[in-house]
Amino acid sequence: MGLDEITTAKPHDRLRHALARELDAVNALIAERMASRHAPRIPEVTRHLVDAGGKRLRPMLTLAAARLCGYDGPYHVHLAATVEFIHTATLLHDDVVDESGQRRGRPTANLLWDNKSSVLVGDYLFSRSFQLMVETGSLRVLDILANASATIAEGEVLQLTAAQNLATDEAIYQQVIRGKTAALFAAATEVGGVIAAAPEVQVRALHEYGDALGIAFQIVDDLLDYGGTEAIGKDIGDDFRERKLTLPVIRAVARADAGERAFWQRVIEKGDQRPGDLEQALALMARHRTLESTRATALDWAERAKSALSALPDDPIRDMLVDLADYVVARAT
Amino acid sequence: MGLDEITTAKPHDRLRHALARELDAVNALIAERMASRHAPRIPEVTRHLVDAGGKRLRPMLTLAAARLCGYDGPYHVHLAATVEFIHTATLLHDDVVDESGQRRGRPTANLLWDNKSSVLVGDYLFSRSFQLMVETGSLRVLDILANASATIAEGEVLQLTAAQNLATDEAIYQQVIRGKTAALFAAATEVGGVIAAAPEVQVRALHEYGDALGIAFQIVDDLLDYGGTEAIGKDIGDDFRERKLTLPVIRAVARADAGERAFWQRVIEKGDQRPGDLEQALALMARHRTLESTRATALDWAERAKSALSALPDDPIRDMLVDLADYVVARAT
Repeated sequence: MGLDEITTAKPHDRLRHALARELDAVNALIAERMASRHAPRIPEVTRHLVDAGGKRLRPMLTLAAARLCGYDGPYHVHLAATVEFIHTATLLHDDVVDESGQRRGRPTANLLWDNKSSVLVGDYLFSRSFQLMVETGSLRVLDILANASATIAEGEVLQLTAAQNLATDEAIYQQVIRGKTAALFAAATEVGGVIAAAPEVQVRALHEYGDALGIAFQIVDDLLDYGGTEAIGKDIGDDFRERKLTLPVIRAVARADAGERAFWQRVIEKGDQRPGDLEQALALMARHRTLESTRATALDWAERAKSALSALPDDPIRDMLVDLADYVVARAT
Repeated sequence: MGLDEITTAKPHDRLRHALARELDAVNALIAERMASRHAPRIPEVTRHLVDAGGKRLRPMLTLAAARLCGYDGPYHVHLAATVEFIHTATLLHDDVVDESGQRRGRPTANLLWDNKSSVLVGDYLFSRSFQLMVETGSLRVLDILANASATIAEGEVLQLTAAQNLATDEAIYQQVIRGKTAALFAAATEVGGVIAAAPEVQVRALHEYGDALGIAFQIVDDLLDYGGTEAIGKDIGDDFRERKLTLPVIRAVARADAGERAFWQRVIEKGDQRPGDLEQALALMARHRTLESTRATALDWAERAKSALSALPDDPIRDMLVDLADYVVARAT
C-alpha cells in the first residue's frame, strides 16, 4: 500500500496494513488451533467460515488496543485469535438458530453440512478459544471474556423471546445488540489494554470504545436491512420477514396510530405477511422518520466511541480507531 | 439415613449422604447462577433439566476428591457447580444433535421448547460455568477444564463422523467415549485435588480414577442399550436404530463372516432396517459373545479406577469411591 492509498483507504484497511505482521501471526495461530487430529470434520466446517474471513475486525481491535497501550509481548495474538474463535462459534450457533440461508454471501455451514456439525464445531471453537486465553495466564482476561460470553448468550436468548413481540422496547433492543455485537467488541478492545497492563483509565476507555463502536455497528446493520448500498449478501427486509424488532420498527411501532398498530400486529405478531407489506412498513418508517432517527442514534454512539479514545495515547492507531467509528456509521448514508 | 441403611445403600447414595451439606451448597449455587435477570426463558429451560436432577454424580466426584485431599475452602462448591453446568450444557446440545425424544425419562428440552433454546441456553450455561471457575482464581483449574471442554467437543464431532461407519474401531470408540463421558469425570475429580493443593501423585491418581470410571460407566451404558434391567427411560436397541457403533457391535463386526458383514452393512451403513433385525443383531452378538467381552472390558476399567485410588489417603470417602467403581459395572450384571 503506497502513501496515497493509505490516506484514502478505508479505516479498517489502514488498520489491517498497520497491523499486518501481527494479523499474519493471528491467522497462523487460527489455522493451527482449528485443526483437529481426531475429527477432520472440524476444519472442514470452520475453514468455510474462517476462510470467508469477514473483515477480521474483532482481532484487529484487540491488536490495535494492545499496540496503542505499548504492549510488546506475544499474547495479544492469542487474544485476537480467541475473539475470532468466539465470533465464529457464535456465527455457527446462529446458523442453527436463524435457519438463515446466507452468511457473508455464501451458503451457511448448516446447509452444507448440518445442524449437528454447526452446534458441535461451534462448541469446539469455544473450547479452543478458552484454551488460548488460559495460555495468556491472565485471570483478569479470563474474567472479562467469561462475562462477555455470558452477555452474548443472554442477549441471544433475549433476542429469541423479543422477536415477534411488539412490547420490545428500546431498552430491550439495547441489551439484545449489546449481547449480539457490542459485548465482544468491548471485550476485544479491553483485553488488549489489560494484556498490555495499561492504566485503569485506559482499560476503561478501551471498553467504552468497543462497546459504543459495537452498538453503533449493530444499529447501522439493522438500519441497512431496510435499505442502503452496502447490504451485500443480505436482502432488504430480511429482518422484517423474520419479524425481528429492530430500532427502526420499534420506533415506528411506538409512534403508530390505531390503524398502523393493527398493521404491525398482523405482520410482526401474527406473521401474516402479504405482498406489498414490506413497502407499507417502509412507508410507515418514512412517515415517522425512524430511519433518520435511527441513524442519528448510531451517530451518537459513534461520537461516544470517539470521545472514549481521548483517554488513550495520541498515535496513528488511535486516529484509525477514530476514523473507524466514523466509517461504521458512514456505511448508512 | 441410619447406620444399617448406610452400609447397604448404593455407593452414590452413601456419597450423597456423606457430602450432604456441600451438595446443598452446590444446589443453591446452581439455582442462583442459573437465573437470568434479562432472559426468563433461561431458567425455564434449565430448571427442566436441573430439577430432573440426574444423580449429581459429577459434582459429587469433585466434592469427594476435594474432601479426600483435605480441602477446607469454599471453591470445591464452585467447581462442583461448574461441572454440573458443563454436563447440563452438553445434554442440551446433545438434544439438538440426536433428535432424541427422551432424556432421563422426561421429554427433552427441545421438544418442549425448540432447538434454538437448547443451543443458546446451553451456551449460557457454558458461560456461567466459565465465570464460576474464574472465581476460584486457579489458572490450573481453568487449564484442566479448558482441555476437558476441547476433548468433549472433539469427541462429539468424532461420534458424528463415526456413526454409520463400519470402519469405526475400538481406538476411535475409546476417543468417543472419553469425550462423551470420561473427560468430564476426570476433570471433575482432578480439579477437586488441584483446588485442595494435593500432591502431584494424588492429583494424577484422581485424574486416572475419573477417566477410568467414566470409561467403565459409558461402556456399561452402551451395553445396557442391548439389554439389562436398569435401562430406564431408554428403549433397548436405541443405539442400533440410530446406527451407532458401540463396543458390542464393533466387536461383532470385527468377528463377522461374509454373510454377517453384509447384514451389518445393510442395517448400519445403509440404514435399511427391517422387523427382526434387532433380534438378528442380538443373535450375532451372542454368537461372538461380545456382550460378555464388553462387560469384561468395563470390569477392567473399573479395576483400573480402583487401583488409582491406592495413591489417596485411607478414608471412608475413598471406600465409597472404590464401591462406586464396582457399582458402575455391577449395573450390567
